[in-house]
Amino acid sequence: MAQNIYDTDAFFEGYGRLRRSVLGLDGAPEWPALRAMLPPTRGLRVVDLGCGFGWFARWAAAEGAARVLGLDLSENMLARARAETEDAAVEYARADLDALDLPEAAFDLAYSSLAFHYVKDFGRLAGVIARALVPGGMLVFSIEHPIYMASSRPGWMTAEDGRCTWPVDGYAREGRRVTDWLAPGVVKHHRRLGTTLNTLVGAGLAIHRVEEWCPTPEQVAAQPSLAEEMERPMMVLIAAGR
Amino acid sequence: MAQNIYDTDAFFEGYGRLRRSVLGLDGAPEWPALRAMLPPTRGLRVVDLGCGFGWFARWAAAEGAARVLGLDLSENMLARARAETEDAAVEYARADLDALDLPEAAFDLAYSSLAFHYVKDFGRLAGVIARALVPGGMLVFSIEHPIYMASSRPGWMTAEDGRCTWPVDGYAREGRRVTDWLAPGVVKHHRRLGTTLNTLVGAGLAIHRVEEWCPTPEQVAAQPSLAEEMERPMMVLIAAGR
Repeated sequence: MAQNIYDTDAFFEGYGRLRRSVLGLDGAPEWPALRAMLPPTRGLRVVDLGCGFGWFARWAAAEGAARVLGLDLSENMLARARAETEDAAVEYARADLDALDLPEAAFDLAYSSLAFHYVKDFGRLAGVIARALVPGGMLVFSIEHPIYMASSRPGWMTAEDGRCTWPVDGYAREGRRVTDWLAPGVVKHHRRLGTTLNTLVGAGLAIHRVEEWCPTPEQVAAQPSLAEEMERPMMVLIAAGR
Repeated sequence: MAQNIYDTDAFFEGYGRLRRSVLGLDGAPEWPALRAMLPPTRGLRVVDLGCGFGWFARWAAAEGAARVLGLDLSENMLARARAETEDAAVEYARADLDALDLPEAAFDLAYSSLAFHYVKDFGRLAGVIARALVPGGMLVFSIEHPIYMASSRPGWMTAEDGRCTWPVDGYAREGRRVTDWLAPGVVKHHRRLGTTLNTLVGAGLAIHRVEEWCPTPEQVAAQPSLAEEMERPMMVLIAAGR
């Protein structure tokens, strides 16, 4: 079972103060790039794996999705998602992505934002998703970039010549990483980017697009702190199809 | 046109002393992983893009390839390749990968070892390769990993706690990188891994496998200096199919 860190008080409170929690999709700088990878959602049956507060589920329903199923492990997240959702096309349920079952060929689009790096057995999950998609269906998701999460102690370093660099170590050693972010002891599972892609291919999905996200010049001008995301890849956005 | 650094004396002499130049394929630690990604070569028409001393071309011919065309920009490399090759199935020719033309649907396998990072316009080259392959044909190649070559000044750093780390900067800034390796002023072209993969997909190739190479425990035991390749990805091996 994946760690349910979102239901610890310190994490949930900290998470609720993040820009992306307050502003929703528009507070997530990668959202325009992720949205550009989505198929037109009108009429689609959508599953959102790790739906959080339901921002994407409500967006997809407003865009005309036929049905959106939002799944999350956190009772806290689901309670707020339900309280903030009025659209009858959206439904929420509790699910552990490490033990997920989905009906076969029931969805046109599987979506996930920054959740799969909490999943221990990605091979199992990719198989479940592939079988849950109809032929022609798509999986579009974001994860923390493995270069961002490989190190046992991730953090910026300043080189002797003043360059700001992101130090990588342990990249080839896949598995558990424990870091302190919003709360101590957050458990993530590091996989090389190649491993993630090969797992998708092994599950019968074709790789459509791999975006190692970086901000646009306009985003950096509006939010200068994003400039550091030009130096190292922090997130990767992937689209794959059945 | 790609830089012809292999025809400068200092580079060529240094390159000739590398383990992989002296021992051939068996001196390249990534060769077992790359070989495992190849289709059975018996009867195939093969093109080797950046063939160097012709080690792979001779291996493919010995494995029963019907024909092997080895292409390289360096007159020095081609002269030695020709001098060391007796197999009539192997032919060599001079070619600049940035200005390459190949006949359409003429090859079953395109292979390249550590050459494409010298190519400026990978989109053009990927299109030429895709058109040169028959349906069902494969492209298998290695490049320096973009995490290895992103920084303007690549090199190991020691963290305050003693960890050996590989500092990344400038990852999202694609383009020219000039480093000193064997000779001063070696020009390479940095592309994010996602860009390379998207370029292949855009050329009509399906991604089969992405190996961010690391040594096996047996390789590290036999050659302890390889241990550092567990910390950062140095090479990526890619298989794609038409």
